[in-house]
Amino acid sequence: MNLKGNGLYAQSGGVTAVINNSAAGLITAWQEALTRNKDHNLNLTKSDLDDLPKLYAAKNGILGVLNNELERIDNYTHAQIANLRSLPGGKFGSCRYKLKNSGDEEAEYKKLIEIFAKYNIRYFFYNGGNDSADTCLKVSNISKKLGYLIQCIHIPKTVDNDLVATDNCPGFGSVIKYLATSVLEASIDLSSMYRTSTKVFILEVMGRHAGWIAAGTGLASKDSTKPPHIILFPEIKFDQDKFLAKVQEVIALNGYCVVVAAEGIKDSAGDLIAASKEVDAFGHAKLGGVANILADIVTNKLNLKCHYAIPDYLQRSARHLASQVDVDQAFAVGESAVVFARKGFDSIMVCIERISNAPYQWQIQSVSLEQVANKEKFMPRDFMDKEGYAISPKCREYLSPLIVGECYPPYANGLPAYL
Amino acid sequence: MNLKGNGLYAQSGGVTAVINNSAAGLITAWQEALTRNKDHNLNLTKSDLDDLPKLYAAKNGILGVLNNELERIDNYTHAQIANLRSLPGGKFGSCRYKLKNSGDEEAEYKKLIEIFAKYNIRYFFYNGGNDSADTCLKVSNISKKLGYLIQCIHIPKTVDNDLVATDNCPGFGSVIKYLATSVLEASIDLSSMYRTSTKVFILEVMGRHAGWIAAGTGLASKDSTKPPHIILFPEIKFDQDKFLAKVQEVIALNGYCVVVAAEGIKDSAGDLIAASKEVDAFGHAKLGGVANILADIVTNKLNLKCHYAIPDYLQRSARHLASQVDVDQAFAVGESAVVFARKGFDSIMVCIERISNAPYQWQIQSVSLEQVANKEKFMPRDFMDKEGYAISPKCREYLSPLIVGECYPPYANGLPAYL
Repeated sequence: MNLKGNGLYAQSGGVTAVINNSAAGLITAWQEALTRNKDHNLNLTKSDLDDLPKLYAAKNGILGVLNNELERIDNYTHAQIANLRSLPGGKFGSCRYKLKNSGDEEAEYKKLIEIFAKYNIRYFFYNGGNDSADTCLKVSNISKKLGYLIQCIHIPKTVDNDLVATDNCPGFGSVIKYLATSVLEASIDLSSMYRTSTKVFILEVMGRHAGWIAAGTGLASKDSTKPPHIILFPEIKFDQDKFLAKVQEVIALNGYCVVVAAEGIKDSAGDLIAASKEVDAFGHAKLGGVANILADIVTNKLNLKCHYAIPDYLQRSARHLASQVDVDQAFAVGESAVVFARKGFDSIMVCIERISNAPYQWQIQSVSLEQVANKEKFMPRDFMDKEGYAISPKCREYLSPLIVGECYPPYANGLPAYL
Repeated sequence: MNLKGNGLYAQSGGVTAVINNSAAGLITAWQEALTRNKDHNLNLTKSDLDDLPKLYAAKNGILGVLNNELERIDNYTHAQIANLRSLPGGKFGSCRYKLKNSGDEEAEYKKLIEIFAKYNIRYFFYNGGNDSADTCLKVSNISKKLGYLIQCIHIPKTVDNDLVATDNCPGFGSVIKYLATSVLEASIDLSSMYRTSTKVFILEVMGRHAGWIAAGTGLASKDSTKPPHIILFPEIKFDQDKFLAKVQEVIALNGYCVVVAAEGIKDSAGDLIAASKEVDAFGHAKLGGVANILADIVTNKLNLKCHYAIPDYLQRSARHLASQVDVDQAFAVGESAVVFARKGFDSIMVCIERISNAPYQWQIQSVSLEQVANKEKFMPRDFMDKEGYAISPKCREYLSPLIVGECYPPYANGLPAYL
């Protein structure tokens, strides 16, 4: 089916190392669709061609729509698309901004739709995580209520890997490839030095509620006798005494101990170990500082020399070590968003379906946004071992294919040539 | 000149992503020297060949000598040498251990020489930084006093880049390639999000006294108007008011601000910003925590959302992003140690001499250990700009060639195949 109006693409929430690949996939598929439109209309004049459906990107996510800051992207050249594919961060800018519901009036949503109408936007492609899926669903519902024809298609993206109904979330494979490599390298460093230096190394990784990222570091070893020796998941209540006993057990066995801690681990009362008074635009507590708290505990209670690392944004922007599978999937979900748009789909999320583990085979599907919005996918209990400090073979089987393949950016003078 | 006895190699102090390349260079050159020995002795029987000079590695650095834990390494295969070249950390183990001087008796040094005599060690190759250069010199002096013939050759290694008399120190180029890439990537992330999220990002890097590593992150941009916007060097006293004014100036200009802070920055009284009561085996204060202190200052005084990253050991073990120039130089200093040994040199450090900046040309030289031991090379004032928050063009010219070229390790199943 031909495109029946203009499209709008916006990036939302925390960016990833590969989110621009979804933009690249979207633009590529849009251009292909236009070529087909052209083929059907060979006798059109230039001014008719100008009437072909345009694809816009909003500057800084949904804020760009409210601020009337749109940019044409359907005219991207091959070179520009290639640059997009290598670039981490959000090329068009992203935002953490929750649209305001003012009672029944749904004020900001209505404003959004006014601007859609002004630009004849008939396809809304929203590239984000949980919160954006909810926004995307609301836009779809309100536009129907107002009688404005638009297809809302959510393109998944989140390093947290916590969207339901998709095998995994683009951005996740690269973050765990980077972190598993980092744990592996730091563990080799530690193993060279622990006899006279640091005995315990703690790596703090992202993950407020779900332990997927922490779990991914488990790929650094074939089993839990090798580092990382202890993984602290947000799904498992943190028990200080049990943790310290485990550290001592590992030290007795190996001489040193490597710990990975998700930022969102909680105590037995359910309170965050690293609670802070700050909250983000969605009301989520801003975390950070788990590593130093754990290092203090280890140092003071066990009198062991301890180091810690907090990669913070480094982990989600490490395009230099992106997973090829992740890059491919990020591109594919963007590309397929146009395919679903042309098929007339509305209020859906593009998702990845796993066909087999080994060899890893997958295909693109769609799922109703109702099934996705406001849901979070946690680590199932059987993805952790009995003790709750390591990943299970089942989890390893799930995670392993997601980090396969290297997709290096081009370099110039020793640094990635990010344009 | 033929080798006249056995050799001993030991790794010392903090390991690097490329220190094993120096071991690989040493073994390669030793094997070449043996081949020449063999050529001169074609009629020797197998038991005669067994008498050819052996090369040992001490387990865990100098401690392995004191504990009589030596391992033959002259028999490494090509595959083993190739694996060494890809492996971060210290393959043979390293240590932070200061030999004890018990008055005039120099007790542990004498013990060392007893073990050298037992194994007929006539070449001592010590791969380390400042402290190891001092140890190497003392071993040379005491062996002379005791009449034990041994040539002591120091192979430079330190991420800190603070050894004098060498253009740079193997390990340094890779750490700054990794950190400049990390700053570049995190800055792109930040620039996508700062309008509704984090305004200030702080990266804490290694460097107790010298600001070389912090300076290396300056390569992430062509000039100081781009991130990193502020570099805090240990050589420049930290002035909180001036710093906060600079952050505000950068925010006014760019909307966000990226700060790199060396762990060893000091206040106007010369006290460490992140002082800790702990000291290492050499009596140096154990640092860490500058980033959180700066983040607190920025948050509380300027009310700006702030994030920080502390790569810690990740930065010095990131073999996945090693600099090709650094790998080549690490190999060359190991290789040349054998060349100097065969020439009869004693009490020297192998060093790198820069012939030209562009194209970057260098050669290997030797320098007397007396000129190196217990000296530290700091950033010259003219390597920083007038304000002291950025590197100067002169510094950029010096640093630029050191990160050139990628030297990826082999991968298997998505992770570096470190064997």
